[in-house]
Amino acid sequence: MAKAKQRLPKRTYLNRARILREQLVQLQVALKKVPFKVLLILAGPEGAGRGNLLNTLAEWLDPRGVETFSYHAPTDSERAHPPQWRFWHSLPGIGRIGLYAGSWYTETLREEARGKRALGHVVQEAGRIRDFEKLLADGDTLIVKVWLQLSKAAQGRRLRTLRADPATAWRVTDEDWHHHRIYDRLARTARLIRAKTDRPGARWAIIDAEDERARDLQVGQLLLARFRQQQRRVARLNRAGAPAAVRPLRPAGLRRLRALPLDQDLSEKDYDALREKWLGRLNRAVRAALAADRAIVFAFEGWDAAGKGGAIRRLTSAIDPRDYRVIPVAKPTVEEKHAHFLWRFWRDIPRNGRMVVFDRSWYGRVLVERLEHFCRGDEWRRAYQEINAFEHELTEHGTIVLKYWLHVSHAEQLRRFREREATPHKRHKMNAEDWRNRRKRADYEIAVGDMLALTDRENAPWHLVPADNKRYARLEVLRSASRQIEAALED
Amino acid sequence: MAKAKQRLPKRTYLNRARILREQLVQLQVALKKVPFKVLLILAGPEGAGRGNLLNTLAEWLDPRGVETFSYHAPTDSERAHPPQWRFWHSLPGIGRIGLYAGSWYTETLREEARGKRALGHVVQEAGRIRDFEKLLADGDTLIVKVWLQLSKAAQGRRLRTLRADPATAWRVTDEDWHHHRIYDRLARTARLIRAKTDRPGARWAIIDAEDERARDLQVGQLLLARFRQQQRRVARLNRAGAPAAVRPLRPAGLRRLRALPLDQDLSEKDYDALREKWLGRLNRAVRAALAADRAIVFAFEGWDAAGKGGAIRRLTSAIDPRDYRVIPVAKPTVEEKHAHFLWRFWRDIPRNGRMVVFDRSWYGRVLVERLEHFCRGDEWRRAYQEINAFEHELTEHGTIVLKYWLHVSHAEQLRRFREREATPHKRHKMNAEDWRNRRKRADYEIAVGDMLALTDRENAPWHLVPADNKRYARLEVLRSASRQIEAALED
Repeated sequence: MAKAKQRLPKRTYLNRARILREQLVQLQVALKKVPFKVLLILAGPEGAGRGNLLNTLAEWLDPRGVETFSYHAPTDSERAHPPQWRFWHSLPGIGRIGLYAGSWYTETLREEARGKRALGHVVQEAGRIRDFEKLLADGDTLIVKVWLQLSKAAQGRRLRTLRADPATAWRVTDEDWHHHRIYDRLARTARLIRAKTDRPGARWAIIDAEDERARDLQVGQLLLARFRQQQRRVARLNRAGAPAAVRPLRPAGLRRLRALPLDQDLSEKDYDALREKWLGRLNRAVRAALAADRAIVFAFEGWDAAGKGGAIRRLTSAIDPRDYRVIPVAKPTVEEKHAHFLWRFWRDIPRNGRMVVFDRSWYGRVLVERLEHFCRGDEWRRAYQEINAFEHELTEHGTIVLKYWLHVSHAEQLRRFREREATPHKRHKMNAEDWRNRRKRADYEIAVGDMLALTDRENAPWHLVPADNKRYARLEVLRSASRQIEAALED
Repeated sequence: MAKAKQRLPKRTYLNRARILREQLVQLQVALKKVPFKVLLILAGPEGAGRGNLLNTLAEWLDPRGVETFSYHAPTDSERAHPPQWRFWHSLPGIGRIGLYAGSWYTETLREEARGKRALGHVVQEAGRIRDFEKLLADGDTLIVKVWLQLSKAAQGRRLRTLRADPATAWRVTDEDWHHHRIYDRLARTARLIRAKTDRPGARWAIIDAEDERARDLQVGQLLLARFRQQQRRVARLNRAGAPAAVRPLRPAGLRRLRALPLDQDLSEKDYDALREKWLGRLNRAVRAALAADRAIVFAFEGWDAAGKGGAIRRLTSAIDPRDYRVIPVAKPTVEEKHAHFLWRFWRDIPRNGRMVVFDRSWYGRVLVERLEHFCRGDEWRRAYQEINAFEHELTEHGTIVLKYWLHVSHAEQLRRFREREATPHKRHKMNAEDWRNRRKRADYEIAVGDMLALTDRENAPWHLVPADNKRYARLEVLRSASRQIEAALED
């Protein structure tokens, strides 16, 4: 072991560690009460002791509240999803601490060491990591990033000591020696990545790793300090002001919604003929897309009783049942409520060659959650941008994203509500909430308008479907879906 | 459409469907109150209308309580796990109905149709399905299996009608015609599979599919009838008798446990030297196993304060953090409590080339759940056999399964409990439950003994580790793990 610097005496270490452990366990108790996710990311050169530090932390913390993570090169299944998908899949549960001995940083640095990646690619990767961490940090997740600093000389001493003892020689690999030789280049790249990813809510801390005892204590102290900051931040954010009246952010969206004509006519006979034609065309388009290894994501939104269920059933009747899944989106569970709102949708994103239909979607954030104050003002305002980034990730990967708003008039909705209440096997679909939401129509129109204005993008356009006439609406879904998928395949 | 038989008049159909829908929705309400999983499996030849039937059922049922499933040929990721893994991953949530338009049967039949599989293989596959369904059915899941019967002539008529209309011709594929030509062979194979998989709790019902209206009503009625039976069954099983005194099923296990010497000696100096040696050997063995694409599963059990956490940390310190995960097994969540007890463990089973360490495991079923009456007597008695079958699935696939019981004496446990209570940073590890469990030592010894006697198999042996001396125990874990993994690689 390197003896170049004065080491912290063992007795001092043990005394401090004892106090620290008690504080860390109290932290974990507090985390259960006001739960958020904590990510502790350990990075640094070989020999800096990520593994040992991880073991120490695992010993100090209550293991029931800890999960450890690290990454291999992506598997086939991971490659068949957008790059961020696997990060979303390896986050700790709510109120738990995730320890990352390897992280999104490790693989990026390893690739660079192998000389496989141009520096431009590393910068791009760092940008992706920064965006991902921003999303988590904005969503109240605490991200603590530790860079364990070890000089080239100290690294050399540590590797040689390990190699000299037959009992520990197995710990030193050829890759370690290679990294030692190119120490300066790797250090430069690491500095670059740190600079690109050092931002509020996800700051880097540089900790000297030469004295293991001092290193472990410092990391523990850092975790404590950051945790207390985050507690104050979360408490401050939750001290909500009185909710303001609902006003449009972008009046153009509201005007677009209100201008939609709803008086379409379509006879049952015409509908039957056209339906089979467009079902056939949609079937061919979907099969072509899936065969080309594209994924397809549908998001259906609309007023209560607008006919989302029926439209989805007509749509899926054209598809091989093995190729798609319908995900009905209910109220979030406790676990989901405390995670970033996109988390649960990331989990259901289809792999290449598959299709998923969301019956209600991530747009709940800027509709019901905005109007019912299920989230804070800063959260739903930020959500438009987060949703655009999310859909951009999907379409960049090649996924085809189709979004539908089914629009019925206030009068037609009333007729359908009354019919449901009068029909025994439809009565279960109605409850007091439906009537309550109906009374808030004006506010909901504003929220829908803002959604249309702020998230209608070329890569993931909104289809605004007139749905007072159910047949017309169903046909319109088939037609526009066929066309969007066909167009996506021509790109 | 085939017109060979008298069709149910539309008006009769609509009247009956109206009543049925009301009853089905009531079924779903009841299912939320006394929750179990319901699997409705639809199988049958092409043209029998699985897809249409699925759509009708999806329309009749409240979609918030329904999930639909079907299967493609296994993905790379699925192939890298034991065959049952993907079935366990596609079960409906608790209190929900899973609709299977394709199922474990579909793929088996398709393969047979392609002529790729010998009949012996089909029989073997059917056996696997039977075992899987038995496990679910014994665990209170309701499995309703429908075979839609359609004569060869009716199938031909249906395919030709669809083909004749340009609007529906796309529905008929070459594979459909191929299946039509070999109708008789496929029907024979299907009969064989049905016979092999028709057992209590997972019965087949044969339903004539020629009249679509009658078909849909019959399937709905069948679901209702089976559901009511299952409700009665669950109610009857839950009417528990008074718990009997704890008696050993196999006294030999208890004798083996009590005969274990616990007075091992090992100096710190000897331990340090031996530890590095065995860490190195374990590291090599694990790397060799993972490189050979084997998966490794550790299950750690033992008395409270027996040192499981410490032993696991020493063990994992020899492994690349990217290669393993530690899963601390806490009390089951509500979702997990209502599912089969193996469900949550199946989800965490590693893919080939990875390692998972369970800190407590599926053996909770025959330890704490047996003694605290968290499950019924028939459930824990059945569990030994279910566990052996589960571990057999794993080792058959090539997974190496290592099981540890860390054994401390009653006196040593008392010393450790007191030390924990006296140490501020260890106090959180202790609660009233630990003392309560301690008072039940005699009962727990019986349960541990039965576990050892009934689940110590050659493919997945128990390591019974004396742990009064922590150093000795940790070393013993490293030694025995290295040896078992090395031996597995020689097979």
